[in-house]
Amino acid sequence: MTSGRFITLEGGEGVGKSTQARMLSEALITRGLGVLLTREPGGTPGAEAIRKLLLDTQFNWDARAEALLFAAARSDHVDHAIRPALDRGEWVVCDRFIDSSRAYQAGGGNSSDDAILAMHTIGSHGLMPDVTFLLVAETPEISARLAARDGDNQDRIGGKPEAYHGRVETRFRDLAAMDAKRFVLIDASGSPAEVHGRIMEAMEPLLGEGG
Amino acid sequence: MTSGRFITLEGGEGVGKSTQARMLSEALITRGLGVLLTREPGGTPGAEAIRKLLLDTQFNWDARAEALLFAAARSDHVDHAIRPALDRGEWVVCDRFIDSSRAYQAGGGNSSDDAILAMHTIGSHGLMPDVTFLLVAETPEISARLAARDGDNQDRIGGKPEAYHGRVETRFRDLAAMDAKRFVLIDASGSPAEVHGRIMEAMEPLLGEGG
Repeated sequence: MTSGRFITLEGGEGVGKSTQARMLSEALITRGLGVLLTREPGGTPGAEAIRKLLLDTQFNWDARAEALLFAAARSDHVDHAIRPALDRGEWVVCDRFIDSSRAYQAGGGNSSDDAILAMHTIGSHGLMPDVTFLLVAETPEISARLAARDGDNQDRIGGKPEAYHGRVETRFRDLAAMDAKRFVLIDASGSPAEVHGRIMEAMEPLLGEGG
Repeated sequence: MTSGRFITLEGGEGVGKSTQARMLSEALITRGLGVLLTREPGGTPGAEAIRKLLLDTQFNWDARAEALLFAAARSDHVDHAIRPALDRGEWVVCDRFIDSSRAYQAGGGNSSDDAILAMHTIGSHGLMPDVTFLLVAETPEISARLAARDGDNQDRIGGKPEAYHGRVETRFRDLAAMDAKRFVLIDASGSPAEVHGRIMEAMEPLLGEGG
């Protein structure tokens, strides 16, 4: 029924996911494919409204409420954007998805991975990506990139301490190891064009098959 | 550790829950008890913010997203209001709680009761009331009360058709039948004072024991 694929980009802060999601989308469009470029949290008006609540520092969300809010935003995003695009045969490129919840809430917070996946089953029928690119880089390079960002840009999640991000990074690598068929680890060091080249190389089997 | 009790009022639209919650709280305060009077959705700044999203007609929430948002609001409410009050030994009187989700989302919507309870376990450690007063009245009396309400007051949930409310009412009665130990059915016909009298009569065992 559909030749579209669902591709997600995952990884810690400052690793270049947004840039790579954009570059990948452009490369797919250049090949004549229909593409939905989207991101989490957000991607639909409802999910963006939830995103605002999540990032608002006046609400001291408990880890469990936070996980439910992310699941609600994802449900809306899947229902009103991702699923319709896939049904139209488009390729969906999404900057963060379920694995970010698993790494940040289950890894950095205190909800279990089972609980995160249970919420995903309830909210989004458990929709999983066809491929997930996990962008990984050495910590010093990331710290330099994050330090270069505008200080005003530090939101509630971006502002958490370095040890938290270390746990998240470890958790992402564990998820990739548990599901080696879906995950592709991408070396995120070097220029955006270099990283993009690595992603496009990893895309070849998918493009040969689906495009 | 605590002598406080957790009391909820449930039932369909226009059945007088808010009035009865207030009257019950005042009666408990008169007996010298510490009381938290609260309601759902809402009850904390975070939960109120979620309540606004839920009632905003610009977001066409799917039943699954809606159920997750209610669970997130409840998690915040339990975490930041209900649980602390119970820990202080106060009595908590709450206008709607988990059974409204079970009746409205699982009954009127299309999430299963198991899914609703699973989200409650994740979000709020499955906290259940000590007593739940289910206010029931004949449909014609309720229709007249609802018709007398200001038309501007019709929000997204209040504005759903009568058949929906019929299913919700049936669902509430089913929940009560399944858990006869926790539920007390209250005849909601007559004046507020008459209904209050019935609730206070049903409170006697609890007050004798806990007060």
